[in-house]
Amino acid sequence: MTSPDKIWTAGLIVIGDEILSGRTQDKNIAQVASWLQVQGIRLAEVRVVPDVEARIVEAVNALRVAYDYLFTTGGIGPTHDDITVDAVAAALGVPVVIHPEARALLERYYATRGGLNEGRLRMARVPEGSELIPNRMSGAPGIRRGNLFVMAGVPHITAGMLDALTGQLEGGAPLISETIGCWVAESEVAELLARVEAAHESCQIGSYPFFREGRVGANFVVRSVSADDLANCCKALGDGLAALGYDFTPGGI
Amino acid sequence: MTSPDKIWTAGLIVIGDEILSGRTQDKNIAQVASWLQVQGIRLAEVRVVPDVEARIVEAVNALRVAYDYLFTTGGIGPTHDDITVDAVAAALGVPVVIHPEARALLERYYATRGGLNEGRLRMARVPEGSELIPNRMSGAPGIRRGNLFVMAGVPHITAGMLDALTGQLEGGAPLISETIGCWVAESEVAELLARVEAAHESCQIGSYPFFREGRVGANFVVRSVSADDLANCCKALGDGLAALGYDFTPGGI
Repeated sequence: MTSPDKIWTAGLIVIGDEILSGRTQDKNIAQVASWLQVQGIRLAEVRVVPDVEARIVEAVNALRVAYDYLFTTGGIGPTHDDITVDAVAAALGVPVVIHPEARALLERYYATRGGLNEGRLRMARVPEGSELIPNRMSGAPGIRRGNLFVMAGVPHITAGMLDALTGQLEGGAPLISETIGCWVAESEVAELLARVEAAHESCQIGSYPFFREGRVGANFVVRSVSADDLANCCKALGDGLAALGYDFTPGGI
Repeated sequence: MTSPDKIWTAGLIVIGDEILSGRTQDKNIAQVASWLQVQGIRLAEVRVVPDVEARIVEAVNALRVAYDYLFTTGGIGPTHDDITVDAVAAALGVPVVIHPEARALLERYYATRGGLNEGRLRMARVPEGSELIPNRMSGAPGIRRGNLFVMAGVPHITAGMLDALTGQLEGGAPLISETIGCWVAESEVAELLARVEAAHESCQIGSYPFFREGRVGANFVVRSVSADDLANCCKALGDGLAALGYDFTPGGI
């Protein structure tokens, strides 16, 4: 159905007042992004939204049609501020139901931890038509419904859910990258970078400057889905830097 | 013009393939969020978009009308992948011009650093009608145009630009918060949290569970613009926890 060089894309919605207040440093964007790379799926957009149903609904509806996959993190716990399931169900226009397998999981998990109460039972609620994403870290599962993946916000629990999904999603060729480091102000070699990128169509070159040990430098990250193109582009960039009289470090500084 | 209890809001666009690839852990969301809190401005939404002009334009146009202020980070350096100025100008429908003061700044900065070349001169380009945001960390300034603030992506340079803007933006009462920590599974007290929040209209309670030293616990963060309401809500929450037999730690665990 799809061409072999289709680029698979994903959106991510990070849900939580604690990220928008600055109280919590988000770690899920980088974690989901890195995991998607390995699956051959490109993270194309992230939105961070508050614990407000209308705002979550709006983001879900915008991103679920824009990309092949949509992931959310946060808001699936037992407390009143955990409203992701309700918002996703509202966005999809389906009711919220108790998932029998999730309920059974929670009953087992809480059997020795005080039993299932109303708050804990909230974590068995799913948009109708959902499957579960296993959670080996704590009781409550994540939720999959079609191309939509609802995951926990606590990073090590999110990691466990991503792990459970590894290899389950169709993707394309992973975007691979090589880094070349150089003790040069990026503004000295801007023209070279642009020229080399233009000459290697399947490659993008990112320039990431730094200031370290009293000196300026930059890492140039070349990305491509083709290993051959990547190698050619890196060779051209290295030759160009050498021609300008700069030493460079394959692998980055 | 505006009511004294107007809630001032901001959007943030984080621009850069390096965030979406997972290569770089974003630090600007938390940094901008915390700074905005102190200015009495609420960060209402963040979007992370790639170094693609059309995607930046789309995000700028969506967020600049939705919130009182819009900030961007990333993409204002000297290299070919730095396209934020062009994208912002396109979104606003104005041309890109060389800002004379920015050019003079860069000429002075690079006088002892190899001189101004084409790449470096790119950093003097602004959407027509812009002012500059001082940058004490490196040569290139940030850009202010009306309610839109275009800042660097390197976190310590972003920090310097935020510092230069401190106290310059009209805001409301800052959202203040208190944290109450408790060695309890949040699912044990979900009903209490919901009840206390509902009884204190101006307050929101966030519940942030953790697993530490072999035990589960949670920090409950109460937020309000009113110090009195905040104190009352914290008192009610503490009383409620005590009534259920839980010790709690003001200030959080």
